[in-house]
Amino acid sequence: MENFGKMRLIEKVSQQPSVLKEFSVQEMEALAAEIRQVIIETVSKNGGHLSSNLGIVELTLSIHKIFNIPPDKIIWDVGHQCYTHKLLTGRYKNFSTLREYGGISGYPSFEEDERDIFKTGHAGTAISSATGLKIGQDALGEQGKVIAVIGDGALTNGLTFEGLNYLGSIGKELLIILNDNKMSISETKGAMSYYLTKLITSPFLNKSREEFIEAVKKIPGLGENILLFAKDLEKKAKYLIVPGVFFEKLGLKYLGPIDGHNMGELTELLKKIKDIKEPVLLHVITRKGKGYSFVEERPDDFHGASPFDMGTGTFLSQGKKTAGSVVGGTLEALGEKDDKVVVLTAAMEKGLGLEGFAKKFPERFFDVGIAEEHCVVFAAGLAKAGMRVFVAMYSTFLQRCYDQIFHDICLQGLPVVFLIDRAGIVGEDGPTHHGVFDISFLRSLPNLKIFAPYSLETLEDAILNAGAENAPCFIRYPKGRLPERLEARQIAGSELIILGCGSMAEASLKAVDILKEDGISASCQFVDRVKPMSENLLKEIDSFDRIVTVEENAISGGFGSVVFEHLGGSKKVFRIGVPDTFIEHGKREFLLDKYGMSPEKIAERVKKFLKGQGDD
Amino acid sequence: MENFGKMRLIEKVSQQPSVLKEFSVQEMEALAAEIRQVIIETVSKNGGHLSSNLGIVELTLSIHKIFNIPPDKIIWDVGHQCYTHKLLTGRYKNFSTLREYGGISGYPSFEEDERDIFKTGHAGTAISSATGLKIGQDALGEQGKVIAVIGDGALTNGLTFEGLNYLGSIGKELLIILNDNKMSISETKGAMSYYLTKLITSPFLNKSREEFIEAVKKIPGLGENILLFAKDLEKKAKYLIVPGVFFEKLGLKYLGPIDGHNMGELTELLKKIKDIKEPVLLHVITRKGKGYSFVEERPDDFHGASPFDMGTGTFLSQGKKTAGSVVGGTLEALGEKDDKVVVLTAAMEKGLGLEGFAKKFPERFFDVGIAEEHCVVFAAGLAKAGMRVFVAMYSTFLQRCYDQIFHDICLQGLPVVFLIDRAGIVGEDGPTHHGVFDISFLRSLPNLKIFAPYSLETLEDAILNAGAENAPCFIRYPKGRLPERLEARQIAGSELIILGCGSMAEASLKAVDILKEDGISASCQFVDRVKPMSENLLKEIDSFDRIVTVEENAISGGFGSVVFEHLGGSKKVFRIGVPDTFIEHGKREFLLDKYGMSPEKIAERVKKFLKGQGDD
Repeated sequence: MENFGKMRLIEKVSQQPSVLKEFSVQEMEALAAEIRQVIIETVSKNGGHLSSNLGIVELTLSIHKIFNIPPDKIIWDVGHQCYTHKLLTGRYKNFSTLREYGGISGYPSFEEDERDIFKTGHAGTAISSATGLKIGQDALGEQGKVIAVIGDGALTNGLTFEGLNYLGSIGKELLIILNDNKMSISETKGAMSYYLTKLITSPFLNKSREEFIEAVKKIPGLGENILLFAKDLEKKAKYLIVPGVFFEKLGLKYLGPIDGHNMGELTELLKKIKDIKEPVLLHVITRKGKGYSFVEERPDDFHGASPFDMGTGTFLSQGKKTAGSVVGGTLEALGEKDDKVVVLTAAMEKGLGLEGFAKKFPERFFDVGIAEEHCVVFAAGLAKAGMRVFVAMYSTFLQRCYDQIFHDICLQGLPVVFLIDRAGIVGEDGPTHHGVFDISFLRSLPNLKIFAPYSLETLEDAILNAGAENAPCFIRYPKGRLPERLEARQIAGSELIILGCGSMAEASLKAVDILKEDGISASCQFVDRVKPMSENLLKEIDSFDRIVTVEENAISGGFGSVVFEHLGGSKKVFRIGVPDTFIEHGKREFLLDKYGMSPEKIAERVKKFLKGQGDD
Repeated sequence: MENFGKMRLIEKVSQQPSVLKEFSVQEMEALAAEIRQVIIETVSKNGGHLSSNLGIVELTLSIHKIFNIPPDKIIWDVGHQCYTHKLLTGRYKNFSTLREYGGISGYPSFEEDERDIFKTGHAGTAISSATGLKIGQDALGEQGKVIAVIGDGALTNGLTFEGLNYLGSIGKELLIILNDNKMSISETKGAMSYYLTKLITSPFLNKSREEFIEAVKKIPGLGENILLFAKDLEKKAKYLIVPGVFFEKLGLKYLGPIDGHNMGELTELLKKIKDIKEPVLLHVITRKGKGYSFVEERPDDFHGASPFDMGTGTFLSQGKKTAGSVVGGTLEALGEKDDKVVVLTAAMEKGLGLEGFAKKFPERFFDVGIAEEHCVVFAAGLAKAGMRVFVAMYSTFLQRCYDQIFHDICLQGLPVVFLIDRAGIVGEDGPTHHGVFDISFLRSLPNLKIFAPYSLETLEDAILNAGAENAPCFIRYPKGRLPERLEARQIAGSELIILGCGSMAEASLKAVDILKEDGISASCQFVDRVKPMSENLLKEIDSFDRIVTVEENAISGGFGSVVFEHLGGSKKVFRIGVPDTFIEHGKREFLLDKYGMSPEKIAERVKKFLKGQGDD
């Protein structure tokens, strides 16, 4: 090895990645400890995905030690577990900028480094993309193992199954590493989870084929005969009596379970797997938060952590009343009055503020795992039976059940209420997580109603009154704080009205104040019904010559477009919203300002609009 | 039994459904023959789903004989196999109106009869909705078995797996009947299909648990010892050595496979299943097209059949050059020039005109089964590797991979080309199949381009040139015939321009002719680029005072809305398109006229617009 002096191992690897190949297990363990330290320190300041990243340090190190990346390639399913990979691929020096605007992304990004093959953020895609990549490579005569790293949560997702089913039938060489930590985001749900637990806990199933044969030989009175029988059985029903039968039924070679924190064993096994030319599923057991007690004890809390005190594990911002707490509280109140109320979610209990409801009404709370499509169709069945159904989901994940919203909710005309959290710019999680398309993709579907409450008060009202609508209702609210309540501003004689849609109401009102200081008189009205729009509001805006719409949704096909459609081209309308581009990661307030949606920028753009100047 | 005289059995059942309960197996067989006759005669005239409906006659009769519907309920996954069910539930008399406007729908419809629980048309939903329905029923203290009838094709779909995984973990009473005919629409793909085949063909696995134990007892030299061992094995690894291990791993009781045309056996087994309080999967083997030789021989051709001659099995309309044949031919030509060209589809080979490509380049043609999400992510992997990827799909099924288009195509900026067939009103298949939302849901996604060719010529151009765009491209074309080529109409001095988008170009041109007869001078321009719109076109329309847009897409958020967004409210725009409601089934031309999109109706509405009158 070269002379790195007293340089820390992580610095050595950062300067010359190939040194990892020569590391002993002891050195790898020391490196793992350094990496954990870097991750904990950084996340305690910047926030981030702590539980999953602490759990996967050794697995990532082992993969990087045994495989050559490139030409070998890793696809990180869901993506939030990639910190160690980033530290090993040139991003140690800038790692302190994690999740900051212009800094290192919390998810894979090929713009940062080409060893992040795909930008990921939604679960279940890795097996399908890896299969395509491998088939393409083969067709083009290119080399390289393709490795898909998936969590146990992804196994509840239909897309993963579609990928497995397809891969199994074509028998392509591929390494799927199942990082099993018994917790997707909340606890993993479903029969697969139970099955995985059995694989891990049953000493019988845990044994290797060879150990199994040895054990059987020793059964008194059976001896060799049973082996003849077993072989016969095997010939007829291949793999029926070895572990991992579920995966082997799908045509994959199953290996494991193996301890994902034992790098000696892991690297040995990976070395052997390297040359297997079939699809292999390696089942690795890891512990979320490994090596940091606060996280090991409360992995859910640290899934997507905000900044915290390293010494005590206490989160720094305790926060005011949030949309999530209003949603949770309102659902609890409804649940107490009406035992037909049921609440569904897809692996997002804590993020959505539903812990209270779940605790109070466990038999009426259904967390189906990362299975958004099932969640919606299951909701349809419950509603059809006569239950009062609420589905809570992040806007970005609602995209995953667009067809089910069409086919199983709207077409059936079922009065399911959707609570769409994180609608708008989510901030540090970046482009895979911004929820800026929901108005655009939902509003063309017949039968549904879209609400965009602009305050905690109107949020509560929307939830309480949705039942009376007798139609599918979609209530969107932002990650950012909503004001408790808000009063519209009517200014007699003003020729301009600013329509602040939902989360943009408060900023619009502030823009009106700024404009006033500059001598421009503008009214401001808030919009909490996007479809159908309020008739009164439409009448009201009829008396203005110029209309500005402000929304935290794609400007393309969003609320501003709804206003155009209503007016038919009779008035000048200027639309402010999320531009037609993918929005990077960074603080929400910063990004809103960058894209012209802060009060100051709104005021500035309105002034240009009034002067008839084009927008930037 | 009452005196029905010489009335046919189907007429008796139609008048008094309960008589079926008393029928002998022989009478049921006679009834099955009558039903087949009715179905064949009707479909030969009206078109429809023949293969699947002929295959499921006996199974449907057996379910209706053993269960009481209601309170028991059947959910038909994908829905197109419901003809026998309809004939048994009050729709025999009107069955000759199948698929006609105002007549019996080809899919379940609770507006027709409440025994059609859900309107279905897209595969994979039945297990999830059935689970919700059953849980809701239980909560409300209501009785009734819930039966989900799914095809083997649905087993390749992720949503089915999500439903199975969830159901297995909660262990709710539910009967899933797997109607296995080894063909979803094209042949079923994937490891599941191989697994099902093994279940059917392996005599070892075919045996029941009891038969298996008997067989084992007879193995020389093993005798009772092996049974002790087997019991021990069973205790430790329940169900490992009995058939259906895949489903039993997911927590379902597996029964079958059983001959789906033997009503004696079927009814006996269903009687026993009636009282099982767990989730049961009954594996039934049927033959598509059963009882009608032309269809048994060519089930793919008769999947969605157009009218045919009953005596010869020949389709009546041989048709002119279609969009499908242009797409197929163009892809073949591209495939010959460039061996990086690959074509993907999701169980729609024939409907899309891809047989030629599939035959010529089998190693570059991928039909992944009813797994639309996997199809798109798999495409992303292939494109990432450097292949030139085309994905062909119906518009309505493209809805199923909206999030993958966002996450795996657009966000990655991959130049995959989507060929969206059946974009617009599809006619007789009705609301689950009309493809009228794609412009609305696609256009807010960054990076992508949308093309709407208005002739076979521009369709071919779009496919040939899409490669040069270096961006995700979506090319939409209708079920109806496109003209070979079309010339725009510029009329000097006209104040009005009609923009005919894609499939509506020809109708728009005809409307201009009608207007001319009435002394109204209008220009007509065609739009084959929806996103981004052509700059030249935008300049051109700037010289007109009034603009009419015509599109075969939802008016809400569609092409007309794009025009609004470009103009910013400076001109009067009148939008003609699919209104904000679910469109029923019926002939495409009829429906276009009903909803104001025929040349005559366009002309009429334009006249009203010019008079400043409101639209109907």
